[in-house]
Amino acid sequence: MYTAGLVGITGYTGMELARALVSHPQINLTVATSRQEQGKKVADLYPFLRGHALGNLEISDADAKELAEKCDVVFLAIPHGVAMDTAAQILEAAENLKKSVKVIDLSADFRIKDIATYEQWYGVTHTQKKYVEESVYGLIEINAEAIKKARLVANPGCYPTASILGLYPALKNKIIKLDDIVIDAKSGTSGAGRKASVPTLFCEVQDNFRPYGLGKHRHTPEIEQELSLIAHNDITLSFNPHLLPIQRGILTTIYTKLTQDYAQEDIQKIYEDTWKDCPFIRVLPAGQFPETRYVRGSMFCDIAVTVDKRTQRLIITSAIDNLARGASLQALANANLTLGLPLKAGIDHVPLCP
Amino acid sequence: MYTAGLVGITGYTGMELARALVSHPQINLTVATSRQEQGKKVADLYPFLRGHALGNLEISDADAKELAEKCDVVFLAIPHGVAMDTAAQILEAAENLKKSVKVIDLSADFRIKDIATYEQWYGVTHTQKKYVEESVYGLIEINAEAIKKARLVANPGCYPTASILGLYPALKNKIIKLDDIVIDAKSGTSGAGRKASVPTLFCEVQDNFRPYGLGKHRHTPEIEQELSLIAHNDITLSFNPHLLPIQRGILTTIYTKLTQDYAQEDIQKIYEDTWKDCPFIRVLPAGQFPETRYVRGSMFCDIAVTVDKRTQRLIITSAIDNLARGASLQALANANLTLGLPLKAGIDHVPLCP
Amino acid sequence: MYTAGLVGITGYTGMELARALVSHPQINLTVATSRQEQGKKVADLYPFLRGHALGNLEISDADAKELAEKCDVVFLAIPHGVAMDTAAQILEAAENLKKSVKVIDLSADFRIKDIATYEQWYGVTHTQKKYVEESVYGLIEINAEAIKKARLVANPGCYPTASILGLYPALKNKIIKLDDIVIDAKSGTSGAGRKASVPTLFCEVQDNFRPYGLGKHRHTPEIEQELSLIAHNDITLSFNPHLLPIQRGILTTIYTKLTQDYAQEDIQKIYEDTWKDCPFIRVLPAGQFPETRYVRGSMFCDIAVTVDKRTQRLIITSAIDNLARGASLQALANANLTLGLPLKAGIDHVPLCP
Amino acid sequence: MYTAGLVGITGYTGMELARALVSHPQINLTVATSRQEQGKKVADLYPFLRGHALGNLEISDADAKELAEKCDVVFLAIPHGVAMDTAAQILEAAENLKKSVKVIDLSADFRIKDIATYEQWYGVTHTQKKYVEESVYGLIEINAEAIKKARLVANPGCYPTASILGLYPALKNKIIKLDDIVIDAKSGTSGAGRKASVPTLFCEVQDNFRPYGLGKHRHTPEIEQELSLIAHNDITLSFNPHLLPIQRGILTTIYTKLTQDYAQEDIQKIYEDTWKDCPFIRVLPAGQFPETRYVRGSMFCDIAVTVDKRTQRLIITSAIDNLARGASLQALANANLTLGLPLKAGIDHVPLCP
Repeated sequence: MYTAGLVGITGYTGMELARALVSHPQINLTVATSRQEQGKKVADLYPFLRGHALGNLEISDADAKELAEKCDVVFLAIPHGVAMDTAAQILEAAENLKKSVKVIDLSADFRIKDIATYEQWYGVTHTQKKYVEESVYGLIEINAEAIKKARLVANPGCYPTASILGLYPALKNKIIKLDDIVIDAKSGTSGAGRKASVPTLFCEVQDNFRPYGLGKHRHTPEIEQELSLIAHNDITLSFNPHLLPIQRGILTTIYTKLTQDYAQEDIQKIYEDTWKDCPFIRVLPAGQFPETRYVRGSMFCDIAVTVDKRTQRLIITSAIDNLARGASLQALANANLTLGLPLKAGIDHVPLCP
Repeated sequence: MYTAGLVGITGYTGMELARALVSHPQINLTVATSRQEQGKKVADLYPFLRGHALGNLEISDADAKELAEKCDVVFLAIPHGVAMDTAAQILEAAENLKKSVKVIDLSADFRIKDIATYEQWYGVTHTQKKYVEESVYGLIEINAEAIKKARLVANPGCYPTASILGLYPALKNKIIKLDDIVIDAKSGTSGAGRKASVPTLFCEVQDNFRPYGLGKHRHTPEIEQELSLIAHNDITLSFNPHLLPIQRGILTTIYTKLTQDYAQEDIQKIYEDTWKDCPFIRVLPAGQFPETRYVRGSMFCDIAVTVDKRTQRLIITSAIDNLARGASLQALANANLTLGLPLKAGIDHVPLCP
Repeated sequence: MYTAGLVGITGYTGMELARALVSHPQINLTVATSRQEQGKKVADLYPFLRGHALGNLEISDADAKELAEKCDVVFLAIPHGVAMDTAAQILEAAENLKKSVKVIDLSADFRIKDIATYEQWYGVTHTQKKYVEESVYGLIEINAEAIKKARLVANPGCYPTASILGLYPALKNKIIKLDDIVIDAKSGTSGAGRKASVPTLFCEVQDNFRPYGLGKHRHTPEIEQELSLIAHNDITLSFNPHLLPIQRGILTTIYTKLTQDYAQEDIQKIYEDTWKDCPFIRVLPAGQFPETRYVRGSMFCDIAVTVDKRTQRLIITSAIDNLARGASLQALANANLTLGLPLKAGIDHVPLCP
Repeated sequence: MYTAGLVGITGYTGMELARALVSHPQINLTVATSRQEQGKKVADLYPFLRGHALGNLEISDADAKELAEKCDVVFLAIPHGVAMDTAAQILEAAENLKKSVKVIDLSADFRIKDIATYEQWYGVTHTQKKYVEESVYGLIEINAEAIKKARLVANPGCYPTASILGLYPALKNKIIKLDDIVIDAKSGTSGAGRKASVPTLFCEVQDNFRPYGLGKHRHTPEIEQELSLIAHNDITLSFNPHLLPIQRGILTTIYTKLTQDYAQEDIQKIYEDTWKDCPFIRVLPAGQFPETRYVRGSMFCDIAVTVDKRTQRLIITSAIDNLARGASLQALANANLTLGLPLKAGIDHVPLCP
């Protein structure tokens, strides 16, 4: 058994990590931190975890040193701008202890390799540049080998996960034009976090739908960075998020132009071949589309490709659970890889439907 | 045309009053206040009101004197504890101006006639006792004549409106026992107000249902006071609220014991006769039940009575829109009565369904 | 007062027409038909209409002749394929009676001017070609003069209404390329109709989101036809619908390429100028976006334009209530115009929010 | 490994059984039947199960004989009235094969011991009376020993599960009066089943709340039968269901009269002591209440007790997931017991929250 720390248990990604760790067969949550909730038991904060051993864990305000001492892997579920220093402190405390500690950062702090780009989009000065270089982008289907060797993993954003997995086969196989990509993305409200705010109140969200930050979302440079690496070319695209009146789930509809006259079957085959060894990606049969409920609570990313002959477009749709695949289960997948555990250990959840 | 002031436009009852005043044929909203939003136009705060003249009104921080000068009627949509002094200041400013100004208070401050009871349940010292005496409880079907003469109306609470209207005919006609009344009430989330808080976030409310404050809700003494007046007897009952994952709507299921062996038809007739001249109460045919959607956005209170022969009970169900009938449209009804306008003026909204 | 007939009251557009007609000051619903519900009163079918005079109307199975005799205007809220013959029969019965009767068809039967295109997309043989020629496409902001003279109006589809109003100023002013238009549209579930079916059950829709019929929706040729007329050029575009877990509302996000380097202010001004005399179109200030709740229950179409400098795109977003603006209130607007009534009569509903 | 059959996979309880069997370590689903879907793979019917081995199972129309041959346990997820004969046929086929086959019936057919009562409430003639006698009521906390020896288990109804577990300690310990029990129950819409019908369409349920069948629900005699056994006295109570706009979840609020002046702590202790060895019942600390989200997807039944001193009542609230604890996971628990497996095998799901 490995021991895990969770820094920041009060948000939805922290909550989801706690949920998943209840049933992980080889990783034990031993330290969970929150400044405002310290002293409470996990089950007092999250009554749905009562009756499980993990529910009895007392929330603490453990510092980096204590985390490094007690944990084999530490998950950071705290805001960007704060995570960078915490990660550095834990890694340095581990070095002092001459101990291997893996850090899986769920914030954006280590995702963007270009510091200027990070600082421009996030409005924060980066204080840990050397760790940016060292960190590995934790998209498990693409970077598994590097992740296995990493001690600091930048866990991908939710929108980037759905977007990149949807576009990867098309870019890898050069079947779409690079200068005409539009991602129309829709996210459940848990993506907005668990802090008190009027715009995410029930009465402001339910029975409503709205775009936000068109063309300006912070996940844009992350998506462009990774797609550019895949395409071996600079990609600038249009990324446009919308807020769904659902709790969990992201669905992207990605509009691209085909480079030539492909048939549906050609592209279907490319996608199925590309992802055939990836247990958490399901390429749907032609004519079927992803639905957020089909991936609820799971690691799955469902992908469908649709050739629109009338406009010579390839329309890609992908769906994930933003908290599970888009954050916490993906973080556990990264933990599994860095710790040498089987990829699927503890993350092979069956979607909850209905 | 009469002029109206609205103190506290930022909450859901303030929002609903603004909505209703857009189409009131004889009352014009001329002053709307909010400390935090002053300077904005109403349509900037509430974009759904853009395109209506009322949307261009600038929100101010008008004080009692200015309100008394500019308005024939002032609605107080501010928290209990604060409303009492504002009401008094407006009425006194009006006296100084030798002007008739009506105050409709949507808070609880003037609803409870017994000061000690008020202070015990609300945890606040009452500073305006003489106005408590003067004020009229604004349940229009029961107190219309007194309301017409009032200058200060205590607008009823949402739960009390649905509960009292449901029980009135049974108590008036002595068909139920007074010592075995249970009200199981369920309210939409707009009843919890429009301030930032974690428990009313979309992801905490949607696809969930929960009781809260069983036996301890502040509307209990208000309901007991009014029912005791109707029954000419002290009534102590059990009132138990629950939170529904809907925006608008209250449904009460009221469990009572019959005093004798009534048939369904008897009680059906008593209810239909009692309410037959009340345009906003709809007694449903036997076998039909109220639904919150059927009253959405309207002044209607739908009521059904069900005799349960097996247990000698009368089960009463009633439904209202908590923001409309349970707060802001009822406040407008009270304004109509105090100003001498037709009861239905500007409040005869057709329910929005679906 | 004019008299109106409603053929097909059991669907959501029929329900919405009934709701709106309750409060129309100059049109009285006198005949409402449904084969399966005849004999019932409207309020038995739709309990939310109890307590209004219209609720007492008995549903009948009136035929074309009776409708022509009794009504000045007839609304057809029945499926495509059926509506075409009913419309023809009513118009012919009116001719026989030497009486003016207006027909507002809410189905798709008279929207597509090219018969072959209609038959291909709808899979139905058109039996009333001459009436296709005669009919007027009822988009009130664009065709008002023709509508005023029409006796047969093809009421626009819900998606086309939101799409065409969003694109009209851009095409009229030639600021976007004609061959790179993508409409990503999201609709509330009432758009799927009110017939029993598993895919629209609550447990299949709530907390879910999904695309459907990408590139293949029947509203595509309707949108292309009208936009081609506006642009004086054939337009082929990609139209892609999605199903939202909300009751009412359509939001479109429309991706276009600018023909030259426009500033946000330029386009903002073009849109505001184009729609400045249209009371039901609200062009939002730069930086604000439409939300479906802001138009709920109303005739408004909210539109925002966003220049994405990074990709030289103009992103247009528009929102309507699919049942109100997208169907039944728009049908009433058309009735108003054909009958010579003021455009806003009976349709100036304030959005219900929350 | 044991083999299981599932008769009727197309409903929500069949769907939930399939979901749960994906991860059961000792029971394999080998036969799944549906007349209308036979020939499809499970993953074609339920795309969320794609990627799991169970998704590849072909749906068949296996008869009782085939089921008896191939399965160690058969779950009946078919309507009452039909299940009785299927159960008998399977048990008789197993006898002919001299093989042990357990039947877990999720319908109501074997729950009511008094045939006349069954026939009166369900409107069906019972054709398998001897199996009614043989069958065991499968409420695992109360009947575990009998279940272990049974070959035919009547899986409890969803409402009865929540109601009986809530009342059991109070009745067992004689702390409440037997003639004044009211159950106000609220259920998610999955309880209404997965067949096409207008009243359970999304647009009829979402943002709505309504009672149904007050005092007349078929689960009433089931609850009364079991509570009478516990109390050693005939109990007649008032059971009143309501429909919640949520997918999964039942919450009951149970109103009772105390036999004497108990303190909160007394009753709290009685409840905690009664259920202390039951891993799936969580008695909440005083002051906390159950919420349906806290049990979503799990076997837990959460229970809270509240003494209302003002009215001498004990108010009991309980929450379960109607599909999981109220049907399919409970069926698996019964299968575990009848097969001699550990109770918790394959059913120890962590609730999904949010």
